[in-house]
Amino acid sequence: MNILIINGPNLNLLGKREPHIYGTKSLEDINEELKKFGEDNGVKLDFFQSNHEGEIIDKIHQADVSYNGIIINPGAFTHYSYAIRDAIASISVPVIEVHLSNIFSREDFRHHSVISPVVKGQICGFGSFGYKLAVYALIEIIDGNGM
Amino acid sequence: MNILIINGPNLNLLGKREPHIYGTKSLEDINEELKKFGEDNGVKLDFFQSNHEGEIIDKIHQADVSYNGIIINPGAFTHYSYAIRDAIASISVPVIEVHLSNIFSREDFRHHSVISPVVKGQICGFGSFGYKLAVYALIEIIDGNGM
Amino acid sequence: MNILIINGPNLNLLGKREPHIYGTKSLEDINEELKKFGEDNGVKLDFFQSNHEGEIIDKIHQADVSYNGIIINPGAFTHYSYAIRDAIASISVPVIEVHLSNIFSREDFRHHSVISPVVKGQICGFGSFGYKLAVYALIEIIDGNGM
Amino acid sequence: MNILIINGPNLNLLGKREPHIYGTKSLEDINEELKKFGEDNGVKLDFFQSNHEGEIIDKIHQADVSYNGIIINPGAFTHYSYAIRDAIASISVPVIEVHLSNIFSREDFRHHSVISPVVKGQICGFGSFGYKLAVYALIEIIDGNGM
Amino acid sequence: MNILIINGPNLNLLGKREPHIYGTKSLEDINEELKKFGEDNGVKLDFFQSNHEGEIIDKIHQADVSYNGIIINPGAFTHYSYAIRDAIASISVPVIEVHLSNIFSREDFRHHSVISPVVKGQICGFGSFGYKLAVYALIEIIDGNGM
Amino acid sequence: MNILIINGPNLNLLGKREPHIYGTKSLEDINEELKKFGEDNGVKLDFFQSNHEGEIIDKIHQADVSYNGIIINPGAFTHYSYAIRDAIASISVPVIEVHLSNIFSREDFRHHSVISPVVKGQICGFGSFGYKLAVYALIEIIDGNGM
Amino acid sequence: MNILIINGPNLNLLGKREPHIYGTKSLEDINEELKKFGEDNGVKLDFFQSNHEGEIIDKIHQADVSYNGIIINPGAFTHYSYAIRDAIASISVPVIEVHLSNIFSREDFRHHSVISPVVKGQICGFGSFGYKLAVYALIEIIDGNGM
Amino acid sequence: MNILIINGPNLNLLGKREPHIYGTKSLEDINEELKKFGEDNGVKLDFFQSNHEGEIIDKIHQADVSYNGIIINPGAFTHYSYAIRDAIASISVPVIEVHLSNIFSREDFRHHSVISPVVKGQICGFGSFGYKLAVYALIEIIDGNGM
Amino acid sequence: MNILIINGPNLNLLGKREPHIYGTKSLEDINEELKKFGEDNGVKLDFFQSNHEGEIIDKIHQADVSYNGIIINPGAFTHYSYAIRDAIASISVPVIEVHLSNIFSREDFRHHSVISPVVKGQICGFGSFGYKLAVYALIEIIDGNGM
Amino acid sequence: MNILIINGPNLNLLGKREPHIYGTKSLEDINEELKKFGEDNGVKLDFFQSNHEGEIIDKIHQADVSYNGIIINPGAFTHYSYAIRDAIASISVPVIEVHLSNIFSREDFRHHSVISPVVKGQICGFGSFGYKLAVYALIEIIDGNGM
Amino acid sequence: MNILIINGPNLNLLGKREPHIYGTKSLEDINEELKKFGEDNGVKLDFFQSNHEGEIIDKIHQADVSYNGIIINPGAFTHYSYAIRDAIASISVPVIEVHLSNIFSREDFRHHSVISPVVKGQICGFGSFGYKLAVYALIEIIDGNGM
Amino acid sequence: MNILIINGPNLNLLGKREPHIYGTKSLEDINEELKKFGEDNGVKLDFFQSNHEGEIIDKIHQADVSYNGIIINPGAFTHYSYAIRDAIASISVPVIEVHLSNIFSREDFRHHSVISPVVKGQICGFGSFGYKLAVYALIEIIDGNGM
Repeated sequence: MNILIINGPNLNLLGKREPHIYGTKSLEDINEELKKFGEDNGVKLDFFQSNHEGEIIDKIHQADVSYNGIIINPGAFTHYSYAIRDAIASISVPVIEVHLSNIFSREDFRHHSVISPVVKGQICGFGSFGYKLAVYALIEIIDGNGM
Repeated sequence: MNILIINGPNLNLLGKREPHIYGTKSLEDINEELKKFGEDNGVKLDFFQSNHEGEIIDKIHQADVSYNGIIINPGAFTHYSYAIRDAIASISVPVIEVHLSNIFSREDFRHHSVISPVVKGQICGFGSFGYKLAVYALIEIIDGNGM
Repeated sequence: MNILIINGPNLNLLGKREPHIYGTKSLEDINEELKKFGEDNGVKLDFFQSNHEGEIIDKIHQADVSYNGIIINPGAFTHYSYAIRDAIASISVPVIEVHLSNIFSREDFRHHSVISPVVKGQICGFGSFGYKLAVYALIEIIDGNGM
Repeated sequence: MNILIINGPNLNLLGKREPHIYGTKSLEDINEELKKFGEDNGVKLDFFQSNHEGEIIDKIHQADVSYNGIIINPGAFTHYSYAIRDAIASISVPVIEVHLSNIFSREDFRHHSVISPVVKGQICGFGSFGYKLAVYALIEIIDGNGM
Repeated sequence: MNILIINGPNLNLLGKREPHIYGTKSLEDINEELKKFGEDNGVKLDFFQSNHEGEIIDKIHQADVSYNGIIINPGAFTHYSYAIRDAIASISVPVIEVHLSNIFSREDFRHHSVISPVVKGQICGFGSFGYKLAVYALIEIIDGNGM
Repeated sequence: MNILIINGPNLNLLGKREPHIYGTKSLEDINEELKKFGEDNGVKLDFFQSNHEGEIIDKIHQADVSYNGIIINPGAFTHYSYAIRDAIASISVPVIEVHLSNIFSREDFRHHSVISPVVKGQICGFGSFGYKLAVYALIEIIDGNGM
Repeated sequence: MNILIINGPNLNLLGKREPHIYGTKSLEDINEELKKFGEDNGVKLDFFQSNHEGEIIDKIHQADVSYNGIIINPGAFTHYSYAIRDAIASISVPVIEVHLSNIFSREDFRHHSVISPVVKGQICGFGSFGYKLAVYALIEIIDGNGM
Repeated sequence: MNILIINGPNLNLLGKREPHIYGTKSLEDINEELKKFGEDNGVKLDFFQSNHEGEIIDKIHQADVSYNGIIINPGAFTHYSYAIRDAIASISVPVIEVHLSNIFSREDFRHHSVISPVVKGQICGFGSFGYKLAVYALIEIIDGNGM
Repeated sequence: MNILIINGPNLNLLGKREPHIYGTKSLEDINEELKKFGEDNGVKLDFFQSNHEGEIIDKIHQADVSYNGIIINPGAFTHYSYAIRDAIASISVPVIEVHLSNIFSREDFRHHSVISPVVKGQICGFGSFGYKLAVYALIEIIDGNGM
Repeated sequence: MNILIINGPNLNLLGKREPHIYGTKSLEDINEELKKFGEDNGVKLDFFQSNHEGEIIDKIHQADVSYNGIIINPGAFTHYSYAIRDAIASISVPVIEVHLSNIFSREDFRHHSVISPVVKGQICGFGSFGYKLAVYALIEIIDGNGM
Repeated sequence: MNILIINGPNLNLLGKREPHIYGTKSLEDINEELKKFGEDNGVKLDFFQSNHEGEIIDKIHQADVSYNGIIINPGAFTHYSYAIRDAIASISVPVIEVHLSNIFSREDFRHHSVISPVVKGQICGFGSFGYKLAVYALIEIIDGNGM
Repeated sequence: MNILIINGPNLNLLGKREPHIYGTKSLEDINEELKKFGEDNGVKLDFFQSNHEGEIIDKIHQADVSYNGIIINPGAFTHYSYAIRDAIASISVPVIEVHLSNIFSREDFRHHSVISPVVKGQICGFGSFGYKLAVYALIEIIDGNGM
């Protein structure tokens, strides 16, 4: 089982950007930790980060044939990228939306996700542990345990 | 470590109510399965369901001193019970909000949670597996692994 | 054929409360009159009034197995109780919504019912005679005359 | 006692138009059935259907002097004809608004009636049986049984 | 100089309809009085009333070539007839909008006129005397006194 | 009979300010012309202009005892001065609102008057001739011809 | 193959009405030209124009049985006639909505069409050439080339 | 003279709950202090707190006959309980709404009270001293000093 | 201890203006009564009324150094004077907002106060007795009894 | 005459993506068919598809000098890319907006195009045949037949 | 070259008022510094501050003939004084709007300026240095360097 | 001191694009002029323009370590790119937002900037001279003169 984890704009700055909100671990640290976590659970995890909406769409299209599932933290694209929404709606592998912070306790514009209506489920507020929860969920979904 | 799982109105009908949305397992089945899952992970789980807003508030108040964490699926109270919101904001143990369905792909009124801004995090769209994800998250939070 | 008539908050004050809007008959008077009307039409009518949202939800759940139909005047719950809405949507017997006054000619907040989208039909503006109309309608529905 | 039943635009297509919503009976069938129902209840029913807002207004004006009550299904005029609203507000005989379908469970624009605030009461969701309920209600109102 | 006075839906009921708002004079009385007032001021006044939006549009089209100005009280069409608005915008003679009552102190929906942006000016709140004011205004406009 | 004409902020610039909208006559020219028009119609007209909301309120209070009627062009105060609105509502002499331009065909914020609901009537779009129409109307009102 | 082209209110004034928006050709000129264009493409075109909403609805009902398709330019009815919308939704022949001007670059109220959700497709901004495009489209649809 | 003081949901946590907003005194402390204050002013004060909307409604109904006035701090019910609003509107003893904090300087949802339109008056922002102010006000009202 | 009581626009008309809302006592009567009430409670009360927003702002600035507290009834400025709001936010003595009537049961525009978020507390609905309540509250605040 | 056809995000998935909405032909199939259609009509068609907003903007800039017209299906960018809107407004060749589906009968967010106000015209709902209609329209426009 | 700098309500409190937002320099200090800065750049600066909307309007009118340009910080009038807006629109010398703080990162009501649409340009967020930037800009504009 | 000037989408067309709004100087001309202006003021200016949101975000990230300040004209991204907003909020060097035109006097959608809340300050309406003002401001900020 292999899963792609996509991180959207500005998430490459993790550890540096507003650490009181996003924590002090860098994206590399998090990915390293997740990679090991994946191996422990029999899942091969690949990682992709981009600040370019178009690259994320291209990647989602490609992932449809090469991965069993996708975990996406769309960053600020969450709130306006109907193009990423359509890309997710166009593919057939399950997609889970993750946010590090609790987006519902922040600025008004962060309360609304244009992505949520087309994903399998949403997990937010658990920092980088949220990616692990999403991996657990994808394993359950892909193994088809009758969720 | 002991955790309280609170289910709000109409969730006692699980298995009977709109099974295409909520699945065919009864709440008793789910709780039984979760109880075992808790034991496997070293957590004692207690369960509480009520169709009465006031009883849920009372329970949250009591739980503050007797549990390490709370998982709540507020059902339809999600969308208007500012009283439950205040109850959660008034206590100090961590609270996680869970929804069985993806509330963002259903009727408009279900897109907005008055509870979300005061919980630690939200998990939705994974059926009853969402409660297990919430248990994982609470273990991580309570053990203080630096989320 | 037996039908349950549920009256929501403050309807126990009928006759005393704002009589220029709700008339001078008490709820007991009305129920007495309806009981007889039911008998004349071969229907056994039971009555339930509560100011507690949770009790109304419990009652709706129980009614699903013991009645052929439900008539509900949700009182002020009409305008915000998504929990009662979900209870009605969760059961299979037909439900009819009744209001004594014409809610569309009163304060703005009374113009919108969160209950209406899930009931069979709505009757409003005919005072206590509206319950009789609802009984007629339920007989027609339950007898399956191809409405 | 004589009552006028007015049907608005497109209701002449009943039986042909979207039968999953409006049923398979033609307007002629329904009127025939209602006529007999009226006779059984000692009421003479007349019928008027038009796709022209102006003709409906003219008819309402005339009906004020020649009928004891009016039952109106304004069709799509329900949602924007303030002119019909004013016509109803200008006359003194009681008017009842009827809709075949439950307008509150359909498209958003159908949830709002500009007519409702000026009628005696509203009945919706009971198919053509709604006209019979309206006849019952008008008899009660006209006989002045203290509704 | 000849001027056409157009009255919209339900204004044929003047004197009968809600006299506390619209006064007790019939439309015929008013027109008679206006006719004389016109003669005194050297203006020939013609009158047209209809409850049919289409007839009013047709009349406006015809009036463009046969009158020096139009006074219109669009009744309830004021609030939604973009078709009448377009008709007025399509012609070249000056048009004045008159309302008997002060539409800004009545129901919310009456506060907005879709006609106002395309007329020369608006006069409201002066009862039938408003038509006379409009005649004065049209004389001033048509005589081209540099308003 | 004596009438006070109040002009609000920036109307002292008439003739200089945006002449394509407001014309080329100065306020002094207009007042001179109106004074004569008043005399011809047996009315003594007084004039007051101020850019200070408070002075206009003070003047309205004083006018209640010394004038038979008030004509007010509140300028930009039209759109937000609830204090002037309350002043007008507090007095008993009739008040007429006048605007030189057709406020409904200009910027959005000019479409809404907070003054209109409390005046006798509104006249707009006729340039300075509107004041004359208002004088005619006040004569009619004060003489009590049963408007 | 025969097609009906319906033009709504004020389109009879084409050539005279705001020629900078609608062009200088009269409706007769356009129809003449379209008639010939139809013949060249093997289609018999009939034409209907009315300023009366009710007549347009009647015509749509009749056209359902006598034409293979309808092209409609609803004029100002575009923005509020839910009755015409329902008429179109009630019939089975394909309907195409055409506007001469680009309605999206004009006043706000013209941006929203209540008709669009129930037609096959919409064409706007191409002047009278839009009718020809609609004829091309109907030929394609009726010939069933798998659009 | 006897007065009932009703406290709504979560107010039983006073002293523990967000003390920077609500102060450090427990509800028992406050009530003790108020009781003495009442005695000093010749008023018998009774106290009722509940997290159950239904119990508060029941209590309001009962209080109508046994108290001279009611002071209510509806807690979060302030913002959505139209049922409590109707209960207050249904009784005849004067009711005063009190809030400990200044609800207008907190979250948006707290700015709107559905209760306020039906109470005698509102007092907010003075901590527990607000209850004393309300007692003063009720004495004045009940003694009928011509407020 | 000395306190300034500021009354905004049109409050100089008290006793004359809409007595069914504001009572029959003049502002002078009320101030006289309050003055005595102040003396009885060891507080020197000064009074200021103005219809000029600017004068009220100037007064608030001056009061910051010469008074222990301010009571303000901003009249209609309540609803739009962000300048008075800023003046209050700029000073350090406590300010209490008072309204004679219950502003929440009147016209929509009166429900919203731009002043409330920056005052210590708000009192409304108790007629002129509200000023006395505000004096009590200021004594409590200034004496620092730990509100 | 040469024309550029630009397709926006996710249109490269045509034939695979939601075929019940977008049909089963791939973009390559459609382009092949259009190329031939262009040749038959004496027009050279070039094609460009991208999921990158920036690439589409760059392409529009370049096309201004090398093409006689542009046909654009902006995909999801339709609903938020003010940058593409500005690009189109910045060039001088005519641009036509095409949508495969009827965007007005789908989700709410698809009803609003930020592109429409700056294009020549819009065509939607005709599947891939819409591109052919746009080619016809551009030929008419470029040949300057006085549309 | 001479320029008038107008400061609106509460700016006389600079240095005292909320120094974390507005800094610790008094308005006199700032003006002193600006005066010198003006002299260094060959510009005579005059200063005017008022808490009275009417005085600011009067000053703007006078400035039209005696200054080459105006810099205005309208304080809270920014958000509602359409009268100041009209005053600015009525004169011909260039006007620049300055705000000390970044109004877009403060309370919602501060995000909207009714003044901005009629000024030459806006500068905000640079503290008192913003006035110097505005002086630079006015020099550029008045010298007519083809901005 | 070195500063980066970032220009967003379509600004590469300056001089060609809508010159009545944006002037006739090309971006190269402006940059040349600014470069010299920078040198005169002891600042090294670098320039970056892109139509790609992702490239602008990448550039902002890089600039955080290599520049003392950033000036950004986000073009149309101003109105929806929450991703650029987050990029700016993530870095520590000061950022100033510049617009050539007065965005508040243009189309509605241009009145709202999602960027403004996170920049140091905003300058708009001064054409290309605005960049010079921003350079002045950055010098002041970076030199830390206590703005």
